[in-house]
Amino acid sequence: MPASPTANNLEYAIGLDLGGTNLRAAAIDRSGTILGRTSGKTQYHEGREAIMSDMVSSISHLRDQFGVENLAGIGIGVPGFISLKEGIIRNSNNISTLENFPIRDELSARLKTQVILENDANAAALGEKWMGAGRDVEDLVMLTLGTGIGGGIISNGRVVHGAHGMAGELGHISVVPNGNPCACGNRGCVEKHASATAITGMARMIGLGDLTSSEVYELAAAGNERALMVFHTMGESLGSLLGILVNVFNFPLFLIAGGVIAGWDMFEPAMMAEAKRRSFTLRTTDTRVERAQLGNLAGLYGAAYLPWCQ
Amino acid sequence: MPASPTANNLEYAIGLDLGGTNLRAAAIDRSGTILGRTSGKTQYHEGREAIMSDMVSSISHLRDQFGVENLAGIGIGVPGFISLKEGIIRNSNNISTLENFPIRDELSARLKTQVILENDANAAALGEKWMGAGRDVEDLVMLTLGTGIGGGIISNGRVVHGAHGMAGELGHISVVPNGNPCACGNRGCVEKHASATAITGMARMIGLGDLTSSEVYELAAAGNERALMVFHTMGESLGSLLGILVNVFNFPLFLIAGGVIAGWDMFEPAMMAEAKRRSFTLRTTDTRVERAQLGNLAGLYGAAYLPWCQ
Repeated sequence: MPASPTANNLEYAIGLDLGGTNLRAAAIDRSGTILGRTSGKTQYHEGREAIMSDMVSSISHLRDQFGVENLAGIGIGVPGFISLKEGIIRNSNNISTLENFPIRDELSARLKTQVILENDANAAALGEKWMGAGRDVEDLVMLTLGTGIGGGIISNGRVVHGAHGMAGELGHISVVPNGNPCACGNRGCVEKHASATAITGMARMIGLGDLTSSEVYELAAAGNERALMVFHTMGESLGSLLGILVNVFNFPLFLIAGGVIAGWDMFEPAMMAEAKRRSFTLRTTDTRVERAQLGNLAGLYGAAYLPWCQ
Repeated sequence: MPASPTANNLEYAIGLDLGGTNLRAAAIDRSGTILGRTSGKTQYHEGREAIMSDMVSSISHLRDQFGVENLAGIGIGVPGFISLKEGIIRNSNNISTLENFPIRDELSARLKTQVILENDANAAALGEKWMGAGRDVEDLVMLTLGTGIGGGIISNGRVVHGAHGMAGELGHISVVPNGNPCACGNRGCVEKHASATAITGMARMIGLGDLTSSEVYELAAAGNERALMVFHTMGESLGSLLGILVNVFNFPLFLIAGGVIAGWDMFEPAMMAEAKRRSFTLRTTDTRVERAQLGNLAGLYGAAYLPWCQ
């Protein structure tokens, strides 16, 4: 939706992206220019109040700096299964201290203004659609690989929410029927087989020891066969998901995001081979599968864009 | 979209549903009343010309009977991966004689008027949304179990098509990674594990002999353990798909259609148990999973509704 008739060149929105590791906020104008930013670590070991307080102070700081008169709105991206109507996180693997707490209304009360809540992966997909790899399409699906795998579905330029706001929980689709267990209650969720966490888990299982996903990447880049096998396996699992999603949506663009895309060349061949095997549509159309472009700022852009696309 | 301003109470549309077994056509008015019907067998062994000729004569017959002045349009539901832009069937497991043939334009030329082409499962989902089990929702997914499994996605009351018209190919989602081979090129497609054809295949594999799916149902109803195992297995595969779809869409309603739903009580418990295991969203929300209501007329209703929802 275009900016309101009273919008001016100074109009801006505040976006906040609450991740398992980092808490980022930014003031961004309608053209996508970042006017100001704050960032810090998410204090999830300190409990709910510490996180809430950090969120409020980040937003207040930006609002004080750029003024209320030009503020189009405030968007918040948070991880987990979100019930949009109630404005709560129903289930979050990463920040359980915020589960079943009225986070949207509490933020609104403390900030004395409405805030728009969104799932972090949905926000990231929206950010890529607005300012990143999806600028030229209206329909895309984005998979963000991190601690888990977040999914975002953009149709006609807007986030697909479903009845409760839980659409796009693509990381919890099973690609291995009796695969690794997941805190969501399912087994073989793709995020247990293709996320950064899955890479470190597989590296340990194959005898590489306790490595970060970056270290597994470095080993693979140096030609280590086991590390390469980890990326190949991860690529196949991701390809299974991709095949499903192309069959479901037949969208023109599917994006892969997250730090793991540093290893793109190591998992892309296995991913595409598996996805093509699983999808007639992918094999026979010009569907694009590409890397996202905004890195860890996608969620911030998307959160800030929320007030402009309600 | 509502009927045009010149619409009157006499306005009607013609829908045609081309199935692997039957070819049905009907004239249906805006209120959903069937004014007239024709039906016969699909002569797929006789080749393309026989089928085309039957389609044209069925439609012409109804148009002659009810007049051109009140005809809102003509909708056609056909099986397979449809390229909507070109109006051709790209791949069809059942009626290969119509593949890569400009079926839409050829019908238009012979009928001397536009026709609207749609995938048969999409048409059936639209029919249920218009006059069946989905009347009270705007968003639903329907799975039609027959020779294969057709999928239809209705969002905001309209069919989701994707970039080429191939969205909703839900029968070709893998639920068994290295399961039964499929003509689409994939393995373990849910339609190879949960369709009527899969039921007959599994019955044969488990030593029940060459039975129709109805005969397997009758055996199961009489308490035959092997036949019950077939329905249980089929229910689990269908539940895997359902879990995926709930995770993807979080829609309020998911419908199961096709003659196989006669065995609902035999596969529903396994289906729901598996789907709930696979979907946090399904376990924790009021998502409905129900039987479709229009039987083998759903596709006919949906095809006729096409001119009114473009």
